[in-house]
Amino acid sequence: MARRQEPARGSRQPGALVIIGGHEDKERPAVILSRVLALAGGAGARIAVVPTASETPRAAGRPYVAVLSRLGARSIEVLKLDRRAEAMDPRWPAKLARATAVFFTGGDQLRITSTLGGSWFHRALAARQRRGLVVAGTSAGASMMTDTMIVEGAADQSPTRNTVHLAVGMGLWPGAVVDQHFSERGRIGRLLSAVAQNPAVLGVGIDENTAIEVDFGDRCFKVLGEGTVTVLDGWGAGETNASESRPQEPLALTGVQLHVLAPAWAFRWEQRRPVAPTHGLQRRERLP
Amino acid sequence: MARRQEPARGSRQPGALVIIGGHEDKERPAVILSRVLALAGGAGARIAVVPTASETPRAAGRPYVAVLSRLGARSIEVLKLDRRAEAMDPRWPAKLARATAVFFTGGDQLRITSTLGGSWFHRALAARQRRGLVVAGTSAGASMMTDTMIVEGAADQSPTRNTVHLAVGMGLWPGAVVDQHFSERGRIGRLLSAVAQNPAVLGVGIDENTAIEVDFGDRCFKVLGEGTVTVLDGWGAGETNASESRPQEPLALTGVQLHVLAPAWAFRWEQRRPVAPTHGLQRRERLP
Repeated sequence: MARRQEPARGSRQPGALVIIGGHEDKERPAVILSRVLALAGGAGARIAVVPTASETPRAAGRPYVAVLSRLGARSIEVLKLDRRAEAMDPRWPAKLARATAVFFTGGDQLRITSTLGGSWFHRALAARQRRGLVVAGTSAGASMMTDTMIVEGAADQSPTRNTVHLAVGMGLWPGAVVDQHFSERGRIGRLLSAVAQNPAVLGVGIDENTAIEVDFGDRCFKVLGEGTVTVLDGWGAGETNASESRPQEPLALTGVQLHVLAPAWAFRWEQRRPVAPTHGLQRRERLP
Repeated sequence: MARRQEPARGSRQPGALVIIGGHEDKERPAVILSRVLALAGGAGARIAVVPTASETPRAAGRPYVAVLSRLGARSIEVLKLDRRAEAMDPRWPAKLARATAVFFTGGDQLRITSTLGGSWFHRALAARQRRGLVVAGTSAGASMMTDTMIVEGAADQSPTRNTVHLAVGMGLWPGAVVDQHFSERGRIGRLLSAVAQNPAVLGVGIDENTAIEVDFGDRCFKVLGEGTVTVLDGWGAGETNASESRPQEPLALTGVQLHVLAPAWAFRWEQRRPVAPTHGLQRRERLP
């Protein structure tokens, strides 16, 4: 565990991503936020909170300052990143240099990408993450993690080609598309719709108060929290009408591998292989 | 098509089942109910409506009398089967002898099974279905079709072992478990929960105004209506915590094959193989 407790600054491998499906517990035991803190260096953690997704960023940042202080972070700062001009400040690499984790709150993922995408802040964030900075995000802050992200899509209806609207995400975790509030909001149709359009992408649906910890060393993500993570793997998919049907028509998509992962289960995303808690993970890799 | 237009009475093969996910269109074009009528013999159809699932059976039967009359059925009768004593009338074999289709309305599937299960009515129904009687049902009338049926289960939450409550169904279609109002009510968790408990069973989730036509000749079901049918095939499933976890714990279930079928798609349930509309179905097998 020694490696994980060290501040991630200066590490040779990318920092973990903690991608949270929304509504994470902020009281005790606060399993997910405690894990973010541990990954960020425990008592030495210096955490920057990015509330850009929210229409009321000050209010969105406040509960995280409270809970992360209580859990024992060394410093917590809510960044002012409400406008693109702020994100374009060339001093961001220096300003982020001491942070050991950056946490993105919920709100609207398009507000994150349209304000921050390609900015000096974004470049500094990505560069630091490649060298060990932990990046966590909940809800909108979860969706934005991937190259392509889900913006919106009707839930609780038959999936159609039109069910999902995609946009360019922040690109911290290539190869996946993440959806959040997944079981609670009946979102499998829109995630299937994204996978049907290009089975190269791995669909990852994360329930509320549930997270995945993406570990670039093991090329594996692990589930933590109290709900499930649904993985849709279209790699071996059979026939589909995705390119034929009119947008309003029902989607057809066959041969998708579906995995439902409970807490402590893991998934090797390159091999597209689930890992049960008792197999294949070394003791040091176990979730706390 | 000649075979299908004939009254099914006296056929050597079992009658089709038309299993409807609820809220089927009763105005024009009324695709699903028109298909029930065609299977039942078109202008020669004699249809018995069973409103047992409903707390208000007279009101539940009435719209079906209206729409089936308008579509041209020769006779429609709403059966009085509110109490078990009525279902235990030994004259049911004779009373059902002239029907070409029996239609079960929605309501509560436990009301169907607790009132009718094992009764003379049930025995007569099953015997006549094996000789060509068409049996259709919507919502509760869909769930009851299988050997084991879903009674209830929380939707729109992380799946747990506890998510689904099962009971003995009416046994007309062995080997499957059917759920209805499927996409609309976010029910994939409870269907997964049923499949995890025994992967022998094929999970079939049917959306509203959508149906499957189960053809025992072709061992194939076809999708009709306007939504999708989700098939969960656990046959090749990997590890699960279904037998280990406590009832409230999140379910884990890996390696499930998922197929989303649009109207005109089909599924060979014994081979567990989806069939696209342009492949594998002979012209005479196409949906109208």
